[in-house]
Amino acid sequence: MQEAMHYCDILKAYAHYATHCFQIFNKLEDDFYRIPKLQQSLVPMFDKKMKAIRACVGANQTFIRNILDQRAAFMNSDRINYDWVYRQNRRIKPGDMDKVKSTLKQCVRDWSAEGKDERKQCYGPILQELEKLFPNPSTKTKVLVPGSGLARLVWEVASMGFHAQGNEFSYFMLLCSYTILNCTKKPNVHRIFPFVHITRNIHSPKHQLASVRFPDVNPVNLPKDSLSMVAGDFQEIYQDQVEEWDCVASCFFLDTANNVIEYVRLISSLLKIGGYWINFGPLLYHYSGMYDEISIELSWEEIKPCLKHYNLELIREEIRKPATYCMDPNSMMKTEYRCLSFTCRKTAKTPKESPNPRYRRSKPGDPVNPGNTGSAPATGGQQNSNKSGPSRSGSSTHGKRKNGQDGRGPGKLANS
Amino acid sequence: MQEAMHYCDILKAYAHYATHCFQIFNKLEDDFYRIPKLQQSLVPMFDKKMKAIRACVGANQTFIRNILDQRAAFMNSDRINYDWVYRQNRRIKPGDMDKVKSTLKQCVRDWSAEGKDERKQCYGPILQELEKLFPNPSTKTKVLVPGSGLARLVWEVASMGFHAQGNEFSYFMLLCSYTILNCTKKPNVHRIFPFVHITRNIHSPKHQLASVRFPDVNPVNLPKDSLSMVAGDFQEIYQDQVEEWDCVASCFFLDTANNVIEYVRLISSLLKIGGYWINFGPLLYHYSGMYDEISIELSWEEIKPCLKHYNLELIREEIRKPATYCMDPNSMMKTEYRCLSFTCRKTAKTPKESPNPRYRRSKPGDPVNPGNTGSAPATGGQQNSNKSGPSRSGSSTHGKRKNGQDGRGPGKLANS
Repeated sequence: MQEAMHYCDILKAYAHYATHCFQIFNKLEDDFYRIPKLQQSLVPMFDKKMKAIRACVGANQTFIRNILDQRAAFMNSDRINYDWVYRQNRRIKPGDMDKVKSTLKQCVRDWSAEGKDERKQCYGPILQELEKLFPNPSTKTKVLVPGSGLARLVWEVASMGFHAQGNEFSYFMLLCSYTILNCTKKPNVHRIFPFVHITRNIHSPKHQLASVRFPDVNPVNLPKDSLSMVAGDFQEIYQDQVEEWDCVASCFFLDTANNVIEYVRLISSLLKIGGYWINFGPLLYHYSGMYDEISIELSWEEIKPCLKHYNLELIREEIRKPATYCMDPNSMMKTEYRCLSFTCRKTAKTPKESPNPRYRRSKPGDPVNPGNTGSAPATGGQQNSNKSGPSRSGSSTHGKRKNGQDGRGPGKLANS
Repeated sequence: MQEAMHYCDILKAYAHYATHCFQIFNKLEDDFYRIPKLQQSLVPMFDKKMKAIRACVGANQTFIRNILDQRAAFMNSDRINYDWVYRQNRRIKPGDMDKVKSTLKQCVRDWSAEGKDERKQCYGPILQELEKLFPNPSTKTKVLVPGSGLARLVWEVASMGFHAQGNEFSYFMLLCSYTILNCTKKPNVHRIFPFVHITRNIHSPKHQLASVRFPDVNPVNLPKDSLSMVAGDFQEIYQDQVEEWDCVASCFFLDTANNVIEYVRLISSLLKIGGYWINFGPLLYHYSGMYDEISIELSWEEIKPCLKHYNLELIREEIRKPATYCMDPNSMMKTEYRCLSFTCRKTAKTPKESPNPRYRRSKPGDPVNPGNTGSAPATGGQQNSNKSGPSRSGSSTHGKRKNGQDGRGPGKLANS
């Protein structure tokens, strides 16, 4: 039930998008009409701009409606009345509204022609490395992409001829990637205004109003049986898939861990001996500063010896590789990551450890050591079944909720 | 009294710095000791690192003690028992703790050899322009630097031979710049660890533990009568100094306005006819997203016609000039602004307008139109008196408090 409530919160955030934006733009407009009339007259196009902004928000909500049309895709329990859950009056979190806006920008990053340079920076090194390490790709070679976001990297890997499996945790991403992968039959059918929410560091109003079309490719153009998606928590789903994977390709993922060492251990355990881990990304630890979450924040120099311990031989290491993330190219502000880009080869079995806990800080009454958090049975080697809907056993775990509470197995979303 | 309470809040935040940091590092350490013992053993230097981090925080607090030793500098009212106010049990705001850490990084930016490149990016174009526009500098040429931060730009302008006046609003900045300018007799006497608080995107622990010495110059080496500092709100202090200034040099300042158009009007009114406004910075409007503050967020293209209206002729315009702000050069994340760099010449009198209000959003019970907010009498053309303490009439206004409530005039801090 907690899972369903969380899912409905995300649906509600999507549905609330335009209203939320209008509240913000109403405030900006209201502010403008408080300054002296003479000063208002110096910005004669203000009204026109605000009208255009609202039209952009409306167009974004139209795209979001396509996403919401797929809401049934993740309603996985027959025992739950999702309509009833949705109607419960739960507050929309401001953080969730930010995630809706991020998802729109992520569409640009992953699926538009405008995102090409950004993809080249981060997916480029991974795809090149795959090409080098596996010169004869086939769907017998299994590549796992944890933290797959809107699934472009999975799609690229599948396009090369591998079997690629994406794993994602966020329903925002999952719903949107499902819409793009399963319900989009030709290129550039969607049009959004991804930067309309950004009101600072703007050179020209036209930049704020810029539109982007996507997808730049036809997402259904994929070799048969080449792509699958699994919804849910990486540690929970994959903990028992020992030595089932030829390659793990992680991009902007490593720092989503509570405990980065545990991610290293798990990735090692997933790989066949001789398999490869290709990584690209920064170390912007996502749980940093969250009081009720464990956050292990190690530097790259501290992580390196951990690789060795888990029999991951570092065969390629590049540092400070520049990459942006969902950047508005016209903005007067640019955040650039200087990423780690590396490849490891698994040289021997992963040293055995007692069951790996997921870490939450204890609350009064909790035991001091967090226990093993439920047992999501792992289903190795999902194959995709062309254009089928998601498995009804699909599950995903999110945020700060306890894992495995529903006792359901990991979900499987198939695309091609 | 509200002013004194606010001032004591800032003193308290400074005093609380190490305790605050230790709380954060205790949590990080605590997290580390919750992961499996075996995984802990993979980071053998962890204890040593945490010990070193605490020593760095201690050293930073030692520098902060120098700042707090100057606390009397801004205790401007004889009628207030500051000790009593300080002892009142007011909560320290998390935002204020961030400001203490920012101030430490600002020392690097403004006063260290390590900050040289950053200063060259933003102060460089301003100083070059001054040189070009005023080839024969003297203390008869008055240059105002609003939003002067830790006062390096004011100091540089004074060093050139002009009379430079800095204006700053934040007590964090004012106390620190007072300490550097008035109580530092030779270069590199201070040593801080400005990046010790940053626990993410680190390549090597040694980067987190890096120290920086400052000031790189002897701050007292200045021509006589060349530098003055005024504490308080720019709009309040300068509104009546019509045509008293030869030049306004603003750096990372324009976007600190509630109403950027009013800043343009005021800057125009301050300048003598034929005087210059030199600006460098982004448009990261500081009041953006604050519900109880007016925020006018215009693009550069919308600001340009306002310049013209206020008889400011744009004689130089460069866009997308890269500049970082308090960057850790070793971090795996880099934020770069693409700044506006321009010069305007005042061609004729500033068009008259009714008194300019400072803008706060109305609350229930407030009148719809914000009124003129008090009358801080302006004192034009302060001259510095060598090494004297700050004027007892010093005042400054901060944050969201009403302005002019104390009925005191603007403060004057003299340095040389």
